[in-house]
Amino acid sequence: MRVDVALVHYPVVNRHGETIGSAVTNLDVHDIARAGRTYGIGTYWVITPFKEQRQLVEQIVGHWTHGYGGSVNPDRSDALALVTVCATYAEALAGATEKFGERPLVLATCAKEQANTLEYAEVREKIRRGTPVLLLFGTAWGLSPELLAASDGVLPPLRGTTRFNHLSVRSAAAIILDRLLGERGDSTIQAL
Amino acid sequence: MRVDVALVHYPVVNRHGETIGSAVTNLDVHDIARAGRTYGIGTYWVITPFKEQRQLVEQIVGHWTHGYGGSVNPDRSDALALVTVCATYAEALAGATEKFGERPLVLATCAKEQANTLEYAEVREKIRRGTPVLLLFGTAWGLSPELLAASDGVLPPLRGTTRFNHLSVRSAAAIILDRLLGERGDSTIQAL
Repeated sequence: MRVDVALVHYPVVNRHGETIGSAVTNLDVHDIARAGRTYGIGTYWVITPFKEQRQLVEQIVGHWTHGYGGSVNPDRSDALALVTVCATYAEALAGATEKFGERPLVLATCAKEQANTLEYAEVREKIRRGTPVLLLFGTAWGLSPELLAASDGVLPPLRGTTRFNHLSVRSAAAIILDRLLGERGDSTIQAL
Repeated sequence: MRVDVALVHYPVVNRHGETIGSAVTNLDVHDIARAGRTYGIGTYWVITPFKEQRQLVEQIVGHWTHGYGGSVNPDRSDALALVTVCATYAEALAGATEKFGERPLVLATCAKEQANTLEYAEVREKIRRGTPVLLLFGTAWGLSPELLAASDGVLPPLRGTTRFNHLSVRSAAAIILDRLLGERGDSTIQAL
């Protein structure tokens, strides 16, 4: 299975739907790396055009992989070793393409229903059959319309029993990795 | 459906397996409230025996429900309104019991396999049939053995394709709520 995750800080939208660049959140780096490691992804691309923000992420990752953090918490080191920092989505896509030896299927995520939806089961099956996949997650109020349009498909919004859908990107990424890659050893859950 | 979530800061264990009280993490309050609201839970009990820590959580929640935060971000206000702060697990259980009109099924969560496991599908079905449930999540290195033993059952550890399992409690809570309460409108996912 060949799945990468990209966390996009630009281009994303703010609450007014305007395209912005957001600031890196420390726990986005940690939580998505830990979920990524648990579910067996390849690379966790952290994308930001801001040089100082890229340096910040490199420092966080360095502390946990080569610094003191890694020596006291090797599991965290294993997780954060998945992170590759880059400046643009194009750079992440090129890196993933080079690594996989072919262009991955680029799947965006969005809290709102989109036209070009691919269902979870469909994507799960594609992954199982070896299709390389790059999952895009947006910070702030989500990926910009251009990125949604540039992707090969969009995963359906996560829903519970309510119409409320304001998960953090950390939570959304964890749930989506579980839906696509989670072990279904529990025979009974297969009937859900 | 009647489901509450409790985030336990004491008694939990540290990396050496010793019982400790952990410090509250701001994003645990936010992320689990947002996931709880998305998946339709009743109350999100934040449990800590430390008075200053309870006051801190009250301040965070107050800022977002009655203060400036709530006025600029009503969705966050809706989510954090689920939080009730209390000092002990016994207090949360008593509160949930009073609210539900009967003692809820208390289900612990743990990153390691336990003896008294209840499968996700089994619990999902109980919830659907109206059984009240209180889900316990541990901070730090997880719930203490006493709390695991005192619960009515333990949900299976979350697993991906690897044996690595070091999700943040925020990620684990989000995934478990999705497994128990997530909409399965996607007909194809039912075949997973």
